[in-house]
Amino acid sequence: MPETYRVGLLGHGTVGAAFEQLLAERADAIAHITGYQPQVTGVLTRSRGDFDEILANSDLIVELIGGIEPARDYVLRAMQAGKHVVSANKLLLATYGEELWSCARSNEVQLRFEGAVAGVVPVIRVLQESLAGAHVERIHGIVNGTTNFILTEMARAGATYEGALQRAQELGYAEADPTDDVTGRDAAAKMAILARLAFSTPVHLDQVPYEGIEHITAEDVAYARDLGLGLKLIGTAERVDGGISVRVHPAFLYPGHPLASVNGSFNAVTIESDAITEITLSGPGAGGAQTASAVLGDVISAMIPPASTPETSEALAIVEDVENAFYLSMEVDDQPGVLAQVAEVLGMQGASIKSVLQRGMDGHARLTMVLHPLLESRFYGAVQLVSRMAFVRSQPRAIRVIEEEFE
Amino acid sequence: MPETYRVGLLGHGTVGAAFEQLLAERADAIAHITGYQPQVTGVLTRSRGDFDEILANSDLIVELIGGIEPARDYVLRAMQAGKHVVSANKLLLATYGEELWSCARSNEVQLRFEGAVAGVVPVIRVLQESLAGAHVERIHGIVNGTTNFILTEMARAGATYEGALQRAQELGYAEADPTDDVTGRDAAAKMAILARLAFSTPVHLDQVPYEGIEHITAEDVAYARDLGLGLKLIGTAERVDGGISVRVHPAFLYPGHPLASVNGSFNAVTIESDAITEITLSGPGAGGAQTASAVLGDVISAMIPPASTPETSEALAIVEDVENAFYLSMEVDDQPGVLAQVAEVLGMQGASIKSVLQRGMDGHARLTMVLHPLLESRFYGAVQLVSRMAFVRSQPRAIRVIEEEFE
Repeated sequence: MPETYRVGLLGHGTVGAAFEQLLAERADAIAHITGYQPQVTGVLTRSRGDFDEILANSDLIVELIGGIEPARDYVLRAMQAGKHVVSANKLLLATYGEELWSCARSNEVQLRFEGAVAGVVPVIRVLQESLAGAHVERIHGIVNGTTNFILTEMARAGATYEGALQRAQELGYAEADPTDDVTGRDAAAKMAILARLAFSTPVHLDQVPYEGIEHITAEDVAYARDLGLGLKLIGTAERVDGGISVRVHPAFLYPGHPLASVNGSFNAVTIESDAITEITLSGPGAGGAQTASAVLGDVISAMIPPASTPETSEALAIVEDVENAFYLSMEVDDQPGVLAQVAEVLGMQGASIKSVLQRGMDGHARLTMVLHPLLESRFYGAVQLVSRMAFVRSQPRAIRVIEEEFE
Repeated sequence: MPETYRVGLLGHGTVGAAFEQLLAERADAIAHITGYQPQVTGVLTRSRGDFDEILANSDLIVELIGGIEPARDYVLRAMQAGKHVVSANKLLLATYGEELWSCARSNEVQLRFEGAVAGVVPVIRVLQESLAGAHVERIHGIVNGTTNFILTEMARAGATYEGALQRAQELGYAEADPTDDVTGRDAAAKMAILARLAFSTPVHLDQVPYEGIEHITAEDVAYARDLGLGLKLIGTAERVDGGISVRVHPAFLYPGHPLASVNGSFNAVTIESDAITEITLSGPGAGGAQTASAVLGDVISAMIPPASTPETSEALAIVEDVENAFYLSMEVDDQPGVLAQVAEVLGMQGASIKSVLQRGMDGHARLTMVLHPLLESRFYGAVQLVSRMAFVRSQPRAIRVIEEEFE
């Protein structure tokens, strides 16, 4: 009988319960791999368990409480006591990551967190290990399953945002209060973590601007389809002008983009680097079983030997104004010369049209176009000018477009 | 100045040269991560270097010679001397893997081989680490870039197999002698390795039946497109009836399949397991820089701490006859009742039609259909009966279809 490896479990919600079950199911297989029989030897919830007692009787702590406190306090105390920690807490890592990683290094313990980003999609491990030697240029990610489900519903069924959200709630893909998901804040926390790992520079959640999908209409999705575009909530982390930009916003993708075919509640991340061109990792977003599986992979790795998040080596600037291609759509009077005048005003701001679609409706027309990449500040300046033109009958709608098509 | 970590490099072809350059470029960044400055301290080629001398002066050996001997001898001797080894040699691992892994375990050294399968797509690490605790049910892979490039050309440009192969050779995606790639043998070696890791059971290249793309015609690709299908060379490793099946053959995919959108020379692998649903990893197949990047990731991991391929824990049977859906296409006389008679003969063998397309040409017709899954032996029995029917004017063409569509 192999020696027991004692796992202390903090939190017993959906993921915690799924983890405990999965660990029990796979304990024998894990004993074969590691030489130790893993076992949950203590569980802390609001109503049962004592942290100090659990800590004293564990070789490793799994933190699935979520939120900042008391999760932060427990994780720090566990590492100070020389225990490895596995956490799926994106908010904690996007906010207090440097403090936690520093604590892990100085206590020579592991802090693993695959479950914090994109569920079972192994993006943390790939960034920290497979690509440890790579100079990452950019990451694009669909890292929130709720919003991807809603956008997929809108595209497939022509549903409104409200209708798609309701369906997501009925099916358990969205919470009763979906604010963190639909505003893009959840995705922003995940992108902060990915950017920190990819670029080895400190990135705090507060440095990641985010824009959600609450204002996307069924028409946006429908018109864009005529241009061959699909809408996703995209997180971006990229090097720009010697600094970096990390942000979350809705964006259209051409069908050739590796993220374009990621539908429903799935997550996916594309990592670009000169040496590797780009790799894409995709899979189910955070469901209980999926996140539990990611946590278990981390536990097994901690049972075998160390991995460590190195100290930051850079202090790169966060670039605020970046280039983007844009989709722009507005209602205009149905009269000659409208397109030419819009094009002229855009051109004065350096915005040039890549493709355009004009469709007459009774008495007016809808003008939908894709613009070549330009600085966002220039683009929004141009939109302001266009919106003041006499024949423009609706506030122009602007959504970013990711241009790359991959082989 | 950090201490030097000495890397002995065996082989200096495309990948070897790219690896040496990448290591030099990234040496400082790696020193930051690991605390050691990596450096190539010896290179063995046919014309220069002495293996024993290089071995004595290395902390780790990178084997990029390819083929069985002398690669096998060098890798064994390196591990016996207590050195970690990183190899990208799929043929060696698919043939002598158990001997090599056993040698690594008994000498307590690491043998890493990410570069052996799917270039920089981190499927080895994900199987061995992220999914170490998962019960993998099935793997589907596009693991040969040459054949995927050829099939993509045929689909896009309506090219013949010969024309597409020639273009692949001109662009450097296919070798002058493309036999190993186009026959499926290269993919079979990679699937043997993946199956070994996924199922923890010995799998030798000789146990992997393979079928290539040499006999695929432009018409196969064109007709199937009318049914919404795309053709790929697919490697499969799956559990069947308490055993496993590992095989490589051309197969059509519906557009919803995660591998359907993998085009050009890209590779991709989908791993299915109850707990994770499925994850897909994709990226460029084996080019020099990409494989070098995978090798470098392994070197860095070896510099930090151990990982190990555990002994096999199972001795699962290799299942020969598996169920598959099929595409079936043939020329028939253009007369009433043909479809009904074909359907009846198929039905007697247990083959039922899922979708069918009949198109008249002058004097005859082409009958193309997709059949629901059935045992391959039953299917081929049915095809033999059909081919003997009086109104069938061409040898029926059969290609497997992968049915799953994912969310």
